[in-house]
Order: sequence, then structure tokens, then C-alpha cells
Amino acid sequence: MTTVPLLNCDMGESFGNWKLGLDDEVMPHVDCANIACGYHASDPHVMRRTVELAVEHGVRIGAHPGYPDLMGFGRRSMACSPAEAEDMVLYQIGALAGICQAAGTSLSYVKPHGALYNDMTADMALLEGVMRAVASYDVHLPLMVMSTADPGPTRELANRMGITLWFETFADRAYDGRGRLVSRREPGAVHHDQETIVSQAVALARGEALTANDGTTLVLPADTLCVHGDNPESIAAVKAIREAFEELLSA
Amino acid sequence: MTTVPLLNCDMGESFGNWKLGLDDEVMPHVDCANIACGYHASDPHVMRRTVELAVEHGVRIGAHPGYPDLMGFGRRSMACSPAEAEDMVLYQIGALAGICQAAGTSLSYVKPHGALYNDMTADMALLEGVMRAVASYDVHLPLMVMSTADPGPTRELANRMGITLWFETFADRAYDGRGRLVSRREPGAVHHDQETIVSQAVALARGEALTANDGTTLVLPADTLCVHGDNPESIAAVKAIREAFEELLSA
Amino acid sequence: MTTVPLLNCDMGESFGNWKLGLDDEVMPHVDCANIACGYHASDPHVMRRTVELAVEHGVRIGAHPGYPDLMGFGRRSMACSPAEAEDMVLYQIGALAGICQAAGTSLSYVKPHGALYNDMTADMALLEGVMRAVASYDVHLPLMVMSTADPGPTRELANRMGITLWFETFADRAYDGRGRLVSRREPGAVHHDQETIVSQAVALARGEALTANDGTTLVLPADTLCVHGDNPESIAAVKAIREAFEELLSA
Amino acid sequence: MTTVPLLNCDMGESFGNWKLGLDDEVMPHVDCANIACGYHASDPHVMRRTVELAVEHGVRIGAHPGYPDLMGFGRRSMACSPAEAEDMVLYQIGALAGICQAAGTSLSYVKPHGALYNDMTADMALLEGVMRAVASYDVHLPLMVMSTADPGPTRELANRMGITLWFETFADRAYDGRGRLVSRREPGAVHHDQETIVSQAVALARGEALTANDGTTLVLPADTLCVHGDNPESIAAVKAIREAFEELLSA
Repeated sequence: MTTVPLLNCDMGESFGNWKLGLDDEVMPHVDCANIACGYHASDPHVMRRTVELAVEHGVRIGAHPGYPDLMGFGRRSMACSPAEAEDMVLYQIGALAGICQAAGTSLSYVKPHGALYNDMTADMALLEGVMRAVASYDVHLPLMVMSTADPGPTRELANRMGITLWFETFADRAYDGRGRLVSRREPGAVHHDQETIVSQAVALARGEALTANDGTTLVLPADTLCVHGDNPESIAAVKAIREAFEELLSA
Repeated sequence: MTTVPLLNCDMGESFGNWKLGLDDEVMPHVDCANIACGYHASDPHVMRRTVELAVEHGVRIGAHPGYPDLMGFGRRSMACSPAEAEDMVLYQIGALAGICQAAGTSLSYVKPHGALYNDMTADMALLEGVMRAVASYDVHLPLMVMSTADPGPTRELANRMGITLWFETFADRAYDGRGRLVSRREPGAVHHDQETIVSQAVALARGEALTANDGTTLVLPADTLCVHGDNPESIAAVKAIREAFEELLSA
Repeated sequence: MTTVPLLNCDMGESFGNWKLGLDDEVMPHVDCANIACGYHASDPHVMRRTVELAVEHGVRIGAHPGYPDLMGFGRRSMACSPAEAEDMVLYQIGALAGICQAAGTSLSYVKPHGALYNDMTADMALLEGVMRAVASYDVHLPLMVMSTADPGPTRELANRMGITLWFETFADRAYDGRGRLVSRREPGAVHHDQETIVSQAVALARGEALTANDGTTLVLPADTLCVHGDNPESIAAVKAIREAFEELLSA
Repeated sequence: MTTVPLLNCDMGESFGNWKLGLDDEVMPHVDCANIACGYHASDPHVMRRTVELAVEHGVRIGAHPGYPDLMGFGRRSMACSPAEAEDMVLYQIGALAGICQAAGTSLSYVKPHGALYNDMTADMALLEGVMRAVASYDVHLPLMVMSTADPGPTRELANRMGITLWFETFADRAYDGRGRLVSRREPGAVHHDQETIVSQAVALARGEALTANDGTTLVLPADTLCVHGDNPESIAAVKAIREAFEELLSA
């Protein structure tokens, strides 16, 4: 049976009087909505409206916890201890889960946001703190983590914690030879051409090797693919990926 | 069968580096811990530690949601709409419920804090917003509300929402003829004498009439009694009330 | 000598990753930029950029302090005491003044924001608290207050405090017979027609009477006129008012 | 002429309902009050009261800006860019300067707090951002920085920016051979014995070499000495250092 990666998208990133993202337009085309939980973005009203929008479109809801840094949108690393990160993640999971419960639904997964996501990719102790939060809340809740060329250590840690992982890949970003995203500061880091994006998405879906920026080939586990709902171009890309995946599935 | 009011106490009001309250000392003597949820006080670490302390002592855990005003400790009224209050309360209930779930326990009730508690006592639309939060989250979760001499309208609203109420009384505060707490700005508003406090607690437990500050008598529904863990005197009062209640129960 | 009201506009209302307002487009057409100070909107980076933009266009800079409520954009009344409001306003004045000093400029006035502005219009004790902040910081800094049909008591208080007032009027809002803005919830409260807006602005500039929504006539002191930079329509209105004022001045 | 290091102490670290520090008790014994500015601790009321207390005792007032992290008390590093740090520091300087101006006094220096202070010690680009904030606000305002055995590069940068430095030393902390504070996690990092503390303070005042924890000797520039007002022991140490310094000065 053919499967394709789940399309996940950050959602519910408005805050109070400030609007961000085209949630209404992108929601119909994705599988998974990563909903911000009030620490780096969102507020109770935005969370509730976004949960309802996801329910309406049958989209899985993921908690998208971040560092407590509204001003920095959770994009600045903070030197939180693993225990601090654990408690913050647990708090944010619970907050969104409560809103889900009120909407007659429930969380399907957890995906940390921004700097927290990057930091836990680079720091196994921090990752273990985040895993403890998930495991103590609900051991059946998958945790999204960055896919790399060497997923073994992360898998081992997850197995020890009893946690399921969803490896996340990107169709619009270049990878280096170790399977890390090329920094946005380097040329060629971000793909803007829709054909390139769709073709990388299809390769990931088929389990085919990508070509890293050093010319080597790279096979990445791809349970899910990150897409964006910031602007009309990114939404067009989501639709194109969705169509390509439907062709794959019907082939 | 004799019953006595549940002793409830605000807990988990520390925040980051700032400590508040003698939670360790008062927890063994109460029935219900109202745990702050991060909007007016507390943080994920404090919440978790407080939940664990409550579990250790077999104390029921209540969500203690407040206005989003750390600087004002949730004691300043904010002109939140009923819908805004509803979403804020739901968010905070969920956050604490998640921490409870991680500790293998669950919430037993909800008691709004400070200005939100007072405002909902005075404004039925706001109260209904809070009740919608509780009802949508878990209709079996009791909501603590201020006891008054005329609890009928509140009971009717709760019945319509399918919500259980716990009427809260005070042993250390004077009441006016309508069953409202006398303002702290007025002389005689707060009882400091332990004998007076215990005797008012016992009267409330027995369903006996209190004498209001205008000389009239007052019978208040008393499912629960608010006690304090701020300082050694208040903890001594809690112990004295507890002893008096045990005598009542063994009589 | 003919004078016209100063055109003032709220600015610098972005926050972190969230953008709000067309500051670049409206700045060239106004006299006074009310710059948010971080309590209800803005952050140090946004404040600095907005100050620099005002300097570039020779626009007077006003501190625009609000309640500490980012989530509510300072639009929810908070029951702050006059002393609390005083200290909050002083803090925010200083923060913006520091950024002005770094840009080689200085504050020209203070205009409280949103609910704080409305609350101080309705509560003389709160207004006095705000005036104490201004007077203690710099008694020569004018304070913008809502113009009313009965400005006497506000003037008396300002005289006692040694404070200069700038009475603020609106060209796009209907007034009631007491010179209060008609609530936005009522029909006809907001003028959308540019001709109506310009004609009300000109009447205010000439000191002519407006017709209140109860049919009575109304003369309002009009040191300044509030305009908006939220969208292209409001910016078109600002330009039209500016043109009309230039005609008045050259007449 | 003999001089001794200025005694500086963190102050105004209460926040809202939470009290921290024995400011009233330590203020009479220090030269410099580092007053928190609302980002990691303090609020406008606390800042104002602390400024007034400093004025009453003739103590110099320093802005004590930190990272925007109340929950972490500014003790967690945040990956702020130099430009972000610059703007944050400028905002906080201005806020406290406004409160000083209202009290008829003015700032005497700037000392960054906690993780920001440590990060700028380790990162010259961040230090330069902080210096830009100080220089753009008032180039005559000294900046406190950590004293090290190799102050040359910091001095050069300060000269280039036109900034005056006050090198800060500690009497109650062990130093390593490079003149860095030994980490609190290592044994012997903190001196608890008052005699040791006073003797290290006197050595620093006299410009005598200290013995580092690797046995080497260490001469540190010592414009100022950090003392603490957290508890009765630390206040006793401050008084003992003050007495020792008075003996030095009268000798």
C-alpha cells in the first residue's frame, strides 16, 4: 500500500488584535494543523477558533508549544533546562487539549515550535525533557521531530521513553550532507520554484534519495512534510503537493 | 449524616523566582487546593510541584483561573467579555488538567480567582461565560461560587447549564445583610480573633444563621469554606477549624 | 492668524512578528505620531523604527501609553488605581523618551491609549493620576484629552496641576449632545463618507458648531484631530483633510 | 588619594504582589543601586519606590536591564541579536530614567542583569550592542562590566564607542586563573565566611593580587564591588565590607 507524508502546517499564529497566516485558506488542504499554544503566539480565542476550523475540515490537531517569548515569536533560543522545557511543553499541551475537549475532539500529536524545535534537535537532553512531557501526558501521542540522515539515536531515545516519532521533512528547503536543513542565510537554502518543491515532496513520499547541497545523496524518513500558509504562493505550493500526492496514491 | 464544608485554600501562587504562600505547611490540613494556572500567578513548574504536593496529601485539585494580569495578581477587574472570559478559563483549566494528567490525577472543581471571581458574582452574563467554559470542558466539574443569601438565580443558571455549584463561605470575614462580604475597607470586615473565626466556621457547618453587620440574621449555603495559607496565623486558624470540624463529625 | 487642529495618528502598533498599520504611508501626512510604548502594543525595535520614521518626516512624537494588556490591545478597562495608572504612564513615557533621546529628538506630548484614555475621560481621579505622571515627568509636556462640550472641569484640574491640555476631536465619528462620541455599537456612529469626514474636520478647524446626533448644536475645542492609518481608505481621508486644511490656511 | 570600589547591589526586584530582597535594610550601606527595569523583575510602582529609597539615602541609581523573561528572572540566556539587545537595553534605560526624572534625580550608570550580563561578557558583538544603547542614550553614562584579568579588548571597544567602563568585582566569589568567576556548580565557588569576604574586598580595594583557584595570582581592575541584599547574612557582609573600606579611607 502506498502512503504519503502527512502535510502539516503551523496555524493559529494570530494574537489578540494581530492577524497572521491564511488559516482559512490553507486548512482545507492539509492533514495536520500545528496550533500555537499561547507562549510564542496565539491566545485562548485564536486557539479555540483554530481548533474549530480544524474540526470542520477533519484536520488532525497538534499542540505546537514554544518558548515563552511572544516578542520573539519563539524564534530565539532560550537556555531552558530540560526540566523547564518539559513543564512548559506539558502546560501548553494541556491548554490546547482542554480547548480540543471543549470542541469534542482531541490532540493527535505534538510538534514543538521554532527555536525549541531546533534546540531539541541539537540537544538530546532537551529532547528527552520534551519527550518526558509527551510521555507523561499521553504516551500514545506522537512527537514530530526533524528528520535527519542519522535518525538512530533519536529513535533509540524515543523507544526508551515509549514515544512514537513522526519524522518531519521539508519540500522547500535544501539539505546538507548530514540531512540538516541548510541555513536560510546561505544561498539556495530555500526553494521558491514550485516545480522543484513538488518534485522534492514526491521524492520524499516515494522514499527516494534527495541530492544534498554537497552533491551526496540522502534518504530521509518522511512521516510528515511541513508546508506553509503565510501567503498565496505557499498555499499554491500546498495545493500542488496535495495534487501530486493524490496522483501517487491513485497510481 | 453530618457533613462539614470542604476547606479550600489558594495554592501555587509562587511565580518564577518569587515565592508566595506556605503551601507545604497548609496542604496537610485542607480538602481542596485552588491552584493558580499561570495567568495571575504560578508557572508550569510551580503548578506541577503544587499538583504533586496535593496528590501526596490526598487533597482535591481545583483549577484557579484568573485574569491575564501577573502584575496585578488578578486582583484588578478587566472588562473582558463573557466570551473572552470563557476562553481564558477554558485555557487555564486545560493547562492545569494536563499537569494533573501527567501526575496521574485529575481536576475536581474550578474556582475563578480574585477580580474574575468577584466580577462573575456581580455579572450574570460573565458568570454564564465562565459556566460555559466549565460545561464545555467537563459538565461534571463543580464550579465554586460565592455563597449569598439569595442563591436562587445562580442555581437556576447552573441548572440550565447542567453545572454543579459549590457555594463558598468565609469564616474570617463579616457579611452584610444581603450575604455579601463586607468590604475590607470597612472596619470589622476581617475577623482576626481565632475564636470568632472557628465559631463562624462551626455555625456555617451546622447550617446555623450568622449575624450580618446590620444585625439581621443570615443563612448561607456552605459547601466549602475558604481558608488561607499566607502566614503562620492563618495556618493556625486552619488547624483550629479542622479540629472543630472533626469534633462535629465525631459528635 | 488662522490655525488648524494638529492631525494625530496612532503609530508603532506592530509587535514582534506581527505587523499592524500603514505607518510608512500615513506618516508623511500627519503632524503628530502617537507611538505605542510596549504595554498594549509595540516593542523596543518597533518603537525605535517608528521614532526614526517620525523624525525623518518632521512629525511630533507623542507617548501613547496604555494598560498592560497586549492580548486585549489595551482596549479592555482595567481597574487600576490612579496611583497605578500614574506609575504605568510614567514608565511608558520614559521608555519612549529614552528612544527619542537616542534618536536626537524628544517627546512633544502624551496621549493615553484605548481604554485608559476612555477611563480617564470618565474618572477625574484617574485623569489626575495620569496628569501627575505627566507633571512629574515634564510639566511642559501637553496631555491630549477627549474634547467635550463641557471642558471646564478638566481645564480646572489641568490648571491646578500646571499641565497644558490638547483637546482632541474626531472627524469620522458622530457626537451626542454632551459632546461624547456616539458608541460604535449604535447606527451612524462612524462616518465612512469622505466628504462628511472632511466637512466635519473643517467645521472643527473653523470653530463652527457640529450637529450632535440629537439635533442640538455643539462647539468643541479642537487642538487636535484624530486620524487613522489602518487602511488605504483612512489614509485617503487623511490626505483629503490635509488638503482642506491647507486651503483654510492659505485662504 | 585612596579610593575604594563602589559597593553596588541589585535592588527593586519585587514584582506586583511578590516581594524580593531586603532593599530597605541594605540601601543605607551601599553606593550604587542597580534597579531592575520591568523586563526580568520589577514594575513601575516598585521602580518608583526603589528610586525614592535610593534618593533618600543618597545612593547612585543604575539601570539594571535584563532579558524579557519574568518567569526566568532574566537568568536564562536568550539568543537576542546585538540589535535586539541594544533596543531592549535602551527601552529599559529610558523607563527608569523617566522615573528618576519624576523623582528629581537621574541615572548614574548602567549594569545589565543576569544572563544578559554574562552573555555580553562572552560575546563582543552583544557587548557592542549594549554599548551602542548606552552611547546613543548618553555617552557619559558608565557601563558596568565584569572585571577580568585581560580587560584590554573590552577597554578598546569602549574607547571606540566613547563609553566609560566600571569594572565590577566580587568579594564572595572565587576566580579562576583567567579572572572569570568559578561556576557556582563547582565546590568553593562561593565564599560564605565573612572574614574571607572582607579580606578579598580589601585586597581588591588595595589593588592587591588575589589567588585564583588554580593557585596563580590575579590582579583585577575594581571600580566597583557587587554586594547582596537577599538575606541578613549578606547584609551583615555588606556592613563589614563598608567598615573595612572606611578604615582604609581613614588610614
